[in-house]
Amino acid sequence: MKNFFFWIPTKVYFGNGEIKRVGDLSKTLGKKAFVLASKDTMKEFGQLEALTDSLKKSGVDFVISDDVEQNPKDYDINRQTEMCIRDGCDFCIGLGGGSAMDSAKAVAFLAAQGGGNILDYLAGGVNPTLANTKPALPIVCVTTTAGTGSELTPWWVVTNTKNREKPGTGNDSTQASVAIIDPELMISLPPTVTQNTGIDVLFHAMESYISKVATPFTEVLSIESMKIVVDTLPKVIKNGSDLELRAKMAWANVLAGIAIGEGRSNTVAVHALGHSIGGQTNVPHGLAMASLGPTYLEMTWDADIDKYAMVSSILLNGQKPISTDKKNLAENSSKYLKEFLKKVGVEVRMRDLGVTEDMIEPMTESVYRTMVDALDCSLKNFTREDVLEMYKRAM
Amino acid sequence: MKNFFFWIPTKVYFGNGEIKRVGDLSKTLGKKAFVLASKDTMKEFGQLEALTDSLKKSGVDFVISDDVEQNPKDYDINRQTEMCIRDGCDFCIGLGGGSAMDSAKAVAFLAAQGGGNILDYLAGGVNPTLANTKPALPIVCVTTTAGTGSELTPWWVVTNTKNREKPGTGNDSTQASVAIIDPELMISLPPTVTQNTGIDVLFHAMESYISKVATPFTEVLSIESMKIVVDTLPKVIKNGSDLELRAKMAWANVLAGIAIGEGRSNTVAVHALGHSIGGQTNVPHGLAMASLGPTYLEMTWDADIDKYAMVSSILLNGQKPISTDKKNLAENSSKYLKEFLKKVGVEVRMRDLGVTEDMIEPMTESVYRTMVDALDCSLKNFTREDVLEMYKRAM
Repeated sequence: MKNFFFWIPTKVYFGNGEIKRVGDLSKTLGKKAFVLASKDTMKEFGQLEALTDSLKKSGVDFVISDDVEQNPKDYDINRQTEMCIRDGCDFCIGLGGGSAMDSAKAVAFLAAQGGGNILDYLAGGVNPTLANTKPALPIVCVTTTAGTGSELTPWWVVTNTKNREKPGTGNDSTQASVAIIDPELMISLPPTVTQNTGIDVLFHAMESYISKVATPFTEVLSIESMKIVVDTLPKVIKNGSDLELRAKMAWANVLAGIAIGEGRSNTVAVHALGHSIGGQTNVPHGLAMASLGPTYLEMTWDADIDKYAMVSSILLNGQKPISTDKKNLAENSSKYLKEFLKKVGVEVRMRDLGVTEDMIEPMTESVYRTMVDALDCSLKNFTREDVLEMYKRAM
Repeated sequence: MKNFFFWIPTKVYFGNGEIKRVGDLSKTLGKKAFVLASKDTMKEFGQLEALTDSLKKSGVDFVISDDVEQNPKDYDINRQTEMCIRDGCDFCIGLGGGSAMDSAKAVAFLAAQGGGNILDYLAGGVNPTLANTKPALPIVCVTTTAGTGSELTPWWVVTNTKNREKPGTGNDSTQASVAIIDPELMISLPPTVTQNTGIDVLFHAMESYISKVATPFTEVLSIESMKIVVDTLPKVIKNGSDLELRAKMAWANVLAGIAIGEGRSNTVAVHALGHSIGGQTNVPHGLAMASLGPTYLEMTWDADIDKYAMVSSILLNGQKPISTDKKNLAENSSKYLKEFLKKVGVEVRMRDLGVTEDMIEPMTESVYRTMVDALDCSLKNFTREDVLEMYKRAM
């Protein structure tokens, strides 16, 4: 066994109705909360009200910015941070999917620096490693989707609107102090969001498992997460109002979030290349992953026969494989992934997402500027030529 | 799925040679360490030297108390705490098995209260819930056995020498800040200690799995831990110098420690009743568990057929069961446990450990005074009559 490290500094509260405890759970973190909520669904379905009711009951003051958009933009983070500072908020709450939670982390970080431009702290900026920065304000994440795992990772991703990149960063201080995962909040998600975010969970689980820095701790979580997604996602897309199915997907998301985030196993080339698709086209993250995943497995299956065979066995979920021979299982992992994605209604190539040939070169540049850490976690060494080839094959 | 909570505030460093990093990993916790080390083996095998070398290199001052005995006694904790305060130490390091780590936690707690008598904070004392106490000094645990899991739990157990009880207590502040699990430190453990501590790991994993407060998080860790122990323990008892086998047992211990401790699933009646055997007879903890375990499964197997069938499947480790019928598997869990214990050289009843009939009544009293929390985690309600019956059947 190799040497490894982990911890889960975030206090994780999982279960129906847990949102009602957000006030009690966060009142030790500060006196006034800056609440960042997603634009579309939060008001309509009453989640924001449930959250503010709880804050009021616990005597926690708050200011709301309920205008978080998908793929948060640099200028929005700067603006929200100004608001947070001006209103004297001393901690941040993100309510929504990955975009709201990432915004909460970015604002908590930038506010602790006294404001400024978030681009200074992202790839291409003056301090992308966050060296010698002050610890972020305390962060509470309340997730309303089963995807991204942002509540259990230190990372936040902000879109650089100048060059259309989606660089990510983070440090120990941008891990949430409290994460609330309340499956009841996910009941209202439309099937397409359930599908996209669920696919993201599958990729987090799968990539962290076949990552060069996977550990015995993250492997057991990644395997459990993959098993749950493969069994549950096809059902929950059809039956989104089933609370038990929602809870299972929410739990799979937590497991995968820990694996990639606080467990430190990261993702691999699929996420590294996928982020650049999101930067160029603003398509949902899960679809970008789906367009690349089968090609990645095809290019790397012989890097670890045992692990890729395990991935196939899980994807098959009891179905009969072509052969039970391990090498054959590993070799067909790409095929089995495609079949699973088809089962959840996703047959997508990069060109279907609006990617054109001329974007491949800038996307490749962007991978190296923004996601080289994840790229380097792939079990096979990825050269620039390999990145280009993967993009071309996946078009 | 039910509502649940978890976190792992302890930074876990796992791997060969990690003890050499203890200085670097603990220098942010304080300036002067109070090191509590086990009496017998620590000097002989150079572990204490490795630890102090690392502290010196990192410029951390220290004072050593290398006289920790098995089942730490109240008066020793009081004496060591006086020493810790007198010498101006601001954090504690436990180096050894459960006794050394529990001593470090107890001293870190009592020193933060300004000293006094540890019995005040244990069952029967004036403040057994640690209400309104000050947070303990920071704690570092360096485990030299694969047993107890103390490095990942908030609890510490101290023997009350007045009434021969072994009450346990603890709170969030008595969770270690840093845990170092270095399999190389375990190479020198004699087969009997490997056996006793390994059995303890099996019971932590099994009991946390069949606990009323088990969660989806702890279940996945408990299952993985049981699987590793069942496969590895028979081999490592025979071949203690195999570092890979040592690493596997060390890892199983971490998993089970998280399950019972920081994952909050606790143990059940086996531990509740077993502690009182240890209090009366001072026998190794693992043997006390082994004398009770099969009787417990016999008395409770029908409380959850699925879970007890899973326990049987794991204990069988690929061997053919009498029947693959789930009910039959669950019903025979006691038999399969006995067979596994026999395989690792332990066929023991309570009377073999020096327990006599007249001890049963005071032991039962003690269960209710010291371990009622664990008793109440059993899937079947345990009355006083059930406790008496379990002791009698296991004699």
